Formats: sequence, structure tokens, C-alpha cells
Amino acid sequence: MPYSYLKPLLDNNGTKIVLLVLDGLGGIPANPEGKTALETAQTPQLDRLAKEGTLGQTIPIRYGITPGSGPAHLALFGYEPLEYVIGRGALSAAGINLPVNAGDIAARGNLCTLDAEGNVSDRRAGRISHENAAPVIAKLDQVQIPGVQVDVRQVKEYRFVIVMRGEGLEPHLNDTDPQEVGVPPLQVTAQQNGSKKAAELMGLWINEATKALADEPVANGFLLRGFATDPGLPSYENAYELKAACIAEYPMYKGVSRLVGMDVLDLVGPGAQGEFETAKKHWNDHDFFFIHIKKTDSYGEDGDLKGKARIIEEVDQALPALLELEPDVLIVTGDHSTPAALKSHSWHPVPFLIWAPQTHRTDHETAFTERNCARGGLGTFPAVETMSLALAHARRLNKFGA
Amino acid sequence: MPYSYLKPLLDNNGTKIVLLVLDGLGGIPANPEGKTALETAQTPQLDRLAKEGTLGQTIPIRYGITPGSGPAHLALFGYEPLEYVIGRGALSAAGINLPVNAGDIAARGNLCTLDAEGNVSDRRAGRISHENAAPVIAKLDQVQIPGVQVDVRQVKEYRFVIVMRGEGLEPHLNDTDPQEVGVPPLQVTAQQNGSKKAAELMGLWINEATKALADEPVANGFLLRGFATDPGLPSYENAYELKAACIAEYPMYKGVSRLVGMDVLDLVGPGAQGEFETAKKHWNDHDFFFIHIKKTDSYGEDGDLKGKARIIEEVDQALPALLELEPDVLIVTGDHSTPAALKSHSWHPVPFLIWAPQTHRTDHETAFTERNCARGGLGTFPAVETMSLALAHARRLNKFGA
Repeated sequence: MPYSYLKPLLDNNGTKIVLLVLDGLGGIPANPEGKTALETAQTPQLDRLAKEGTLGQTIPIRYGITPGSGPAHLALFGYEPLEYVIGRGALSAAGINLPVNAGDIAARGNLCTLDAEGNVSDRRAGRISHENAAPVIAKLDQVQIPGVQVDVRQVKEYRFVIVMRGEGLEPHLNDTDPQEVGVPPLQVTAQQNGSKKAAELMGLWINEATKALADEPVANGFLLRGFATDPGLPSYENAYELKAACIAEYPMYKGVSRLVGMDVLDLVGPGAQGEFETAKKHWNDHDFFFIHIKKTDSYGEDGDLKGKARIIEEVDQALPALLELEPDVLIVTGDHSTPAALKSHSWHPVPFLIWAPQTHRTDHETAFTERNCARGGLGTFPAVETMSLALAHARRLNKFGA
Repeated sequence: MPYSYLKPLLDNNGTKIVLLVLDGLGGIPANPEGKTALETAQTPQLDRLAKEGTLGQTIPIRYGITPGSGPAHLALFGYEPLEYVIGRGALSAAGINLPVNAGDIAARGNLCTLDAEGNVSDRRAGRISHENAAPVIAKLDQVQIPGVQVDVRQVKEYRFVIVMRGEGLEPHLNDTDPQEVGVPPLQVTAQQNGSKKAAELMGLWINEATKALADEPVANGFLLRGFATDPGLPSYENAYELKAACIAEYPMYKGVSRLVGMDVLDLVGPGAQGEFETAKKHWNDHDFFFIHIKKTDSYGEDGDLKGKARIIEEVDQALPALLELEPDVLIVTGDHSTPAALKSHSWHPVPFLIWAPQTHRTDHETAFTERNCARGGLGTFPAVETMSLALAHARRLNKFGA
């Protein structure tokens, strides 16, 4: 459970909270005189909110730790990321809304190409197209073995998810993906005694499924990794008494949102504008809106500082549509930093802005940048405190003790 | 025990520490150009200390948590407030210096008015005067039942404390206060099996005591709540090797101070001036002085920003009398924020100033305000670290490790 001391204090008062996450928001300047993407972007709206509200910066997981997207979002949602670990298989299944219940086993799959000796010659089956991969993956879904039920669903192109359902299955299995070519797929093996039954059944299914693909010209094999079951995350409803919605373009973020019980909304349009309009459409049905902007991270990973700045400007320009809804609390932050200079996620603190006109404490800072956030009124704090701050500023937490 | 790593490092060197707590000190400005009470107040003394010493801001309990006065003071005293919980009955008894030992059960009481059917018609007995309530409460103190000793003492007006002493008593009992009128007082019931004996005896006493009040014209009943026993807090002497004194006007703060073994001093006069003179009178007898100013919080709760600012100015003007005593360490802070704009305690960080002319590190800040404290040299830190900082700046902590 997210901080158990919150639960007895909750007051479901109908106020509305928006958590706007610009993925990979933070950056580093190329030199002391240089600017980050956030400093480069013209952001009059965000700067106004920064001036009125309170800034700070978060440590996503721990000092020095570069997070993946899963744990970074769990932290933002208030789930201690070192305690709650979502297996990749379970996360992928949630991303495409394929149910994984306690005791089910989910894994990620890649179609691959095997040579005449049965060695992997291409780990992604020549990056086979979505359309061409679809019938191959449909074949896999047809393969069944006694004692369990197997579901296989395409994610995108050569990527799929498999879920095996049955009695006595435990998910501690090694990947079959050897992560290199020129060798055969690995045998699936149990990491713990309790998972021996699962290893046996999964091995059986893999044999049958491999036979079923034998005649495929390109995608004649597959590799599995990230075996996992339902992580059993407490829901937002249970933990926070919040009816929560997820507004995101990418499956991964929908997935982690589903795992905490958010309703994943269909987008009414693309980009920040489309996401904010989606919030407007569903405004009366939810208390909490998680809105996820992906492309800040994508441009960061591409090393494209200007592209990243452009996305931040798009968000800034679209912001009035969100503010028109009059949220009681608006938080603008990232899940982690993705400096274009590093072309990757990083461990650097993440800019954080809270704007809650009834309750925020204005600080000295007047612009939404990394350097201003480092001196903001909230200080430097763990990202896992985000929900406590959101609930407090929404006046959804009663006093602790007399 | 407050941080157990402190104990082996203690060096009882005779230096003197003052912890000056302005209750509910922090605020929020009404708008970005607005000022908090602390920013409004003219505080030349405090600003000088801020310039010379180090600022920071504390998180009283956890991010987003609005503390009650009890846990907020425990944190300032170095007792992790989620670990040490003081029941309200025990706190009230301590406030009037009525001993509660381990195994005793204390509760808060209200005199009330019961109608002909035995239903509560007024939960405070028409706010009966202190003088008129005194003989009624004295009657209650006379009621005794076999096997236990019962003490009843007036707190103020219709409020009293009851302590039951005997063998095998456990304090997990439900309140008899129904928190509404038109219904009878609740039966006292055990929340756990171990408390059944206590519930039985307390029920017996309540019956006898209710009979004893039957002829009273107004206060013919009573309601009990907050059953609790001694929280068993380690003393300041034991935890810190400090001979500590409490200088406070209100019972609640005297109570929590007694529970950590402070001597509660009689005030030589009212207000900050009177409290500082009290410190002067007892300066040679103690190492540590907790001085509590209540009215900053009271005005905050009333929404009276100017009143709150005026109290801060009074403290500032009286400060030379305290500085004349030449404390080695002076900390000025609050237990929590009480923004006049919210008319209540809040979760916002609390301004913190440490002034220790022999040891402090001066930072960039030159005024004692929320916004300056947010950028101060101590950063944002848990209030429970206050005592460690106090002891360190007093050079009362030896080196950890070689």
C-alpha cells in the first residue's frame, strides 16, 4: 500500500487533481552558459504557474539511480519503487489490456528468424511489418496444450505478449531470449522449485508453438522474456479514494496506469492538445487525471534538444485548455530526466511544479527550469511523495494526530 | 529512543540550547505579490539572526501531512512521530501534571447534560463555568469502585481528566462520547480482548458516577474519550543527557514536555517577555529550554494574518532579553504551519533558523521568511532532525567512527 498513514486521513472532498508528466523532462546544459531543453523552450504559461505556485525537484528512485519508465511512474503514483516491482511481462500485458491475474504468467515475446541449424539469425525477424507479423502471432494464439489456457496477442510489429493461465504456476522463469544471434533460443528453466511446473508447461508450449511456425519464411521462431505475474498493486481507489483516469498515447503508460486501477481513456486527438481535450471530455467522471506526454523523452533519447524544447512549447501553448477546467491541483513534472546531451534516461533530479491556487505557497522562483526548480520552495524530495503533496494541496488529507 | 546513534556520541559539555517554537509559524501568501504573516512582521532581531546563522525548512511529519500539535512537538523533540503515538488521555493528564504510569488508563472527559430519557442534550453542559463545574468534578473524584483507584481532575470549565489505576488494565477502549446529541452516551467497550477487564471496571465506575451526578441541575452526565496509557517516551535526560525545561502557557505543551521528562517552569509573566524572563530566572538550572509561543497559531486559525504578525513582532522585540543569556544554540522555528489563509494547521514546510555563533555556517539568506528559509543552508529536512542539529551546534556530539 502507498504510505499507509495516508489512508486514515483521506477526505474524499470532490476536488480535482491533474498530474501532467512530460516524460524525461529534465536535462543538462551542454556547458555552463548553455541551456537545457526546458530552458530553451518559450513557456509563458508554465512560467506563470511557476511564479504563482511552488517549485521543487524530485529524486525518482534514489540518488544516482537512472530509472526505467515503470519504476519512475510507480514512484510518481506513490508506490515505493524498490518495494513494488512490476515484471515486464505483466506490464506489457497491461499495456494492451490483456488481463493477468494472480497465478497467471505473462511474458514479452519477439518473433525471430531461426537458421537451418535452429540458431537465431535475426532477433526481430527482419523487423517484419505489423501486417505481416499479425497472422504469425495469430498462429501462436492457436497453439494450446492440456492443463493450461494460453493467450497470445500482438503488441506492435514483431512484438507480442503471451499469458499462460492454469493451476500451480509460479512465474520465476529464465528468459528464452539469448540476447545474441548464432545460438539457439534458450530452454525455459525454473529459477525456483515452485516454478518447475510452469517451466515444464511453458517448455511444452514452446515446442508446439515452434513447430507451428516451422513453415514461416521469416518469422519462424520466437523469444520470450520478462516472465511475471500480476504485481498486485493496491488501486488508486483503495489507496487514495480517487477515481483516476489515464490519458496517454503509449501502451506502456496505459499499462502501469491500469495496474493501479486507473481508467484508460480513449484520446479525442493527438498531442498535448488532444490529451487536454480528452481530459475536458471526461472531466466530470474522475477526480484524478494522469496525463502523459511521451515525445519529450523520445527527442531526448535522440539527442535532439530542439525537438524536445518544441514539444515542451506545444504543451505550454495547449495549457490554457487544461487550466480552463480549473483543476484544484496541477502538478507538472517528469518521470525522470532524459538529457539530450546524454541521449538516455538519467539520474538527475526532475523539475517539479505544483500549482494549487487555494493552497500553494508561492516561493521566490518565477520560471519553470531545472535551475529554478533546484531552489524552489518544495526543496529536493523523493518522487514517491508526489501523491501526498497532491492530496494535501487538494485538501484531501485530514490532520494527523491531535 | 530518539536516534540511537546519538547516544554513544553524547558529550555533556554544559552548553545551553534554546528551542523557541512559534506555534503554527509558517504561512502562505494570499497571492504571488502578497506576504505571509512572517513576511509582514517587522523582525529586525530575527533577520539579524537569519543573516548570521543558517536557515532551512522542516517537514513536520511527512510530505503532505498536516500535523496535530502532539506529533508535531514529538518530532521537534526528536521522537519519530509515526513510531511514538501519545493517546489524548495521557496527553491531557500530563498537561495538568496528573501522573499516568504504565498500566494506568487515562481519558479526557466532558461534563454534559442528559435529558429525562438519558439522551445527551448538551455535550458541554451548557458550557458551564469553571467555578460551577469544579464541585461536580470533585463529586466524580469521590466515586470509587473496588479493585482500582480512580482520580478525576478538572482541566478547564467542563473538561476533566480521569485516571484509573489497578492491575491488568489495558487502554484499548472505545469512547463513550457519541459526538452528537439526542442519543445516550455510548457504553464503554473493549477494542481488544486484553482490555475486557478495563472495559468492565470502567463501565462499573461510569454507572456509579452517573448516579452520583443524577441530582445536578445542568451537568448531570459526562462523556469520556481518548483512553490511553503512558506512552513510555524516553526522557531527554536519558536520550540526550540534557536537563530540560519547558516554558509554555498552555497545558497541552506542558503535557508533552512532561512526557519527555522536562521540568515545567512556572511563568514569571505573560507573553514572550514573560517567557524569556522565566528562562533567565532558571538559566543556571537547565541545559535546554523549550519555549513555546501559542498565539501565532491561534491567530492563524482565526484567519487573522495581522494578529499573527503582531505576535511575531512581540517575540522579535522581546528577543534581546533571551540573547542576553548568551545561549550557545538558539533555534527559532514552528511545530507546523498555520496559514491564516487556510485558518488551520497545514502540511507546508516550516521556517527554521539556527543561530550558534561558535558553530553555525552562514548562508546566503538575510531575512527570516518562508521564501528565504526555502533557500537556506540547511535545505528542506524532517523536523525530527532538529535535536541532532541542536546537539551538534552545541558541540554536544562527538565524532562518529574513527
